[in-house]
Amino acid sequence: MNNLRATLDQNAARVENALNELFMSRSVKSETLAEAMKYATLGGGKRLRATLVYGVGELFDAPKAALDAAACAVELVHAYSLVHDDLPAMDDDNLRRGRPTCHIQFDEATAILAGDALQSLAIETLLSERFNPCDVETRAAMAETLVCAIGDEGMVGGQAIDMQFTGLSVSLEDLSLMHALKTGALIETSVMLGGIIKLKQGDRALDILSGYGRALGLAFQIADDILDHTSDSETLGKDAKSDDRQNKTTYVSTMGLENARAEANRVCQEAVGLIQRLDGDTQFLENLAQFTVKREY
Amino acid sequence: MNNLRATLDQNAARVENALNELFMSRSVKSETLAEAMKYATLGGGKRLRATLVYGVGELFDAPKAALDAAACAVELVHAYSLVHDDLPAMDDDNLRRGRPTCHIQFDEATAILAGDALQSLAIETLLSERFNPCDVETRAAMAETLVCAIGDEGMVGGQAIDMQFTGLSVSLEDLSLMHALKTGALIETSVMLGGIIKLKQGDRALDILSGYGRALGLAFQIADDILDHTSDSETLGKDAKSDDRQNKTTYVSTMGLENARAEANRVCQEAVGLIQRLDGDTQFLENLAQFTVKREY
Repeated sequence: MNNLRATLDQNAARVENALNELFMSRSVKSETLAEAMKYATLGGGKRLRATLVYGVGELFDAPKAALDAAACAVELVHAYSLVHDDLPAMDDDNLRRGRPTCHIQFDEATAILAGDALQSLAIETLLSERFNPCDVETRAAMAETLVCAIGDEGMVGGQAIDMQFTGLSVSLEDLSLMHALKTGALIETSVMLGGIIKLKQGDRALDILSGYGRALGLAFQIADDILDHTSDSETLGKDAKSDDRQNKTTYVSTMGLENARAEANRVCQEAVGLIQRLDGDTQFLENLAQFTVKREY
Repeated sequence: MNNLRATLDQNAARVENALNELFMSRSVKSETLAEAMKYATLGGGKRLRATLVYGVGELFDAPKAALDAAACAVELVHAYSLVHDDLPAMDDDNLRRGRPTCHIQFDEATAILAGDALQSLAIETLLSERFNPCDVETRAAMAETLVCAIGDEGMVGGQAIDMQFTGLSVSLEDLSLMHALKTGALIETSVMLGGIIKLKQGDRALDILSGYGRALGLAFQIADDILDHTSDSETLGKDAKSDDRQNKTTYVSTMGLENARAEANRVCQEAVGLIQRLDGDTQFLENLAQFTVKREY
């Protein structure tokens, strides 16, 4: 997995660079807003979503600039969702990626607005020819895929269910639905965007990518619950034990630690099996699925 | 202007109907989220933005379904911006359209998420063929126009400047910039969307529409400041005197009430003069410009 770590680092540096260029190209009249958007987005995170875009896109030989646009878009949405999730009215977290959360570093109003503007910017990055060199059909398909995954029927819908579940005892089925929306939809979209750039609608490879993305997203989430339960804040770079503290149902609280570990491995193998069905060198994407459950942060 | 009132009511009913159908077509797992989105969007408001879409679109004989999609999109964005602006961390308003604001009726977390999801839904409405029957180039152009107007370089940027200005003495130039972004960009976009459906990029009519939209947006904002200063909460359906209470610079506080009234009329005449340059029957759009400064709510 040494090779994997090097590629992860490379991809993280690549999207960091692309995000920096994107922010430099903006003309934002409120310096505070511009700073908060950069603060929330730059300098951290595993960049799992960006690396999925790059890994899948390279398998299909997609143009580099289009992949940068897609990688920026999914990381911008991820950053926006974290900024809003961390707000006092939501998860009320003070620490993120080892630094104060956006509303602590700035203030609540600025954090709300920064999240709002990051969502718009993500979609603009996919739609605008200035950032995304694909033809207009592909740009529209990319933007529609993203926007359908992150709204009421996707990511935000999952976050709303999560808020309602807090303090309640939740079935495994409901828990899975919540995570499939809250984190799964954006992870699956990251995988799909790398493919949409080159594949036509209806291509069988898109179904495989969708299945791989969903399995990887689920494995990632189970691993996240395990880490929150077993790790510490310093290692995670965010508040550990926050699920326990907020009395949230997790895969660990529902299945127990050992069963959760076994389930994460099972789903991870499902992702690996699916992606192997594609032509070309899928080693990186297989390793990536394994990394989601073996990571320590 | 009796005729105007009838058309305004007709257009308001038309977009209300289209929004209702749109919400009915959604599959949202969190009932609270779905309810909050509807609560924030349905049953109220002047629907100025929707009526601009319809008025301009009918001038160019645009397809009805495309106009409904565009009218929904701008009203969804407007509703999202109000929900977030009303939050305790922002303007902290309890009353909107004569009813409790979204975070009072539900809670802060739900209001934040409802706003987030309304933004996504607005863009999906323009991009998805299911809602918007235009060809893909036009759908992409409409979505890009909207998304560029509402983010860091537009509406949210203006809201961020507004927050920074609170309690400070602000020059007329800075005040105008703030309003051009905060409310002007979406009003201009409402006008543009009605034209983009039928006009090619570079068409001279688009420049005229842009100028009309900007002038009308400015006239609307000056009138808004005047109403906030001179009217009462019952007539407005929202907290009156909130600018004074928050010590905000307004056109009234900067220019004085009489000068603000004269400026609103001047800018309104500018809008009327511009729209008269277009072929076809522009009477409704002229009346609409006049309505923005003569309204009492």
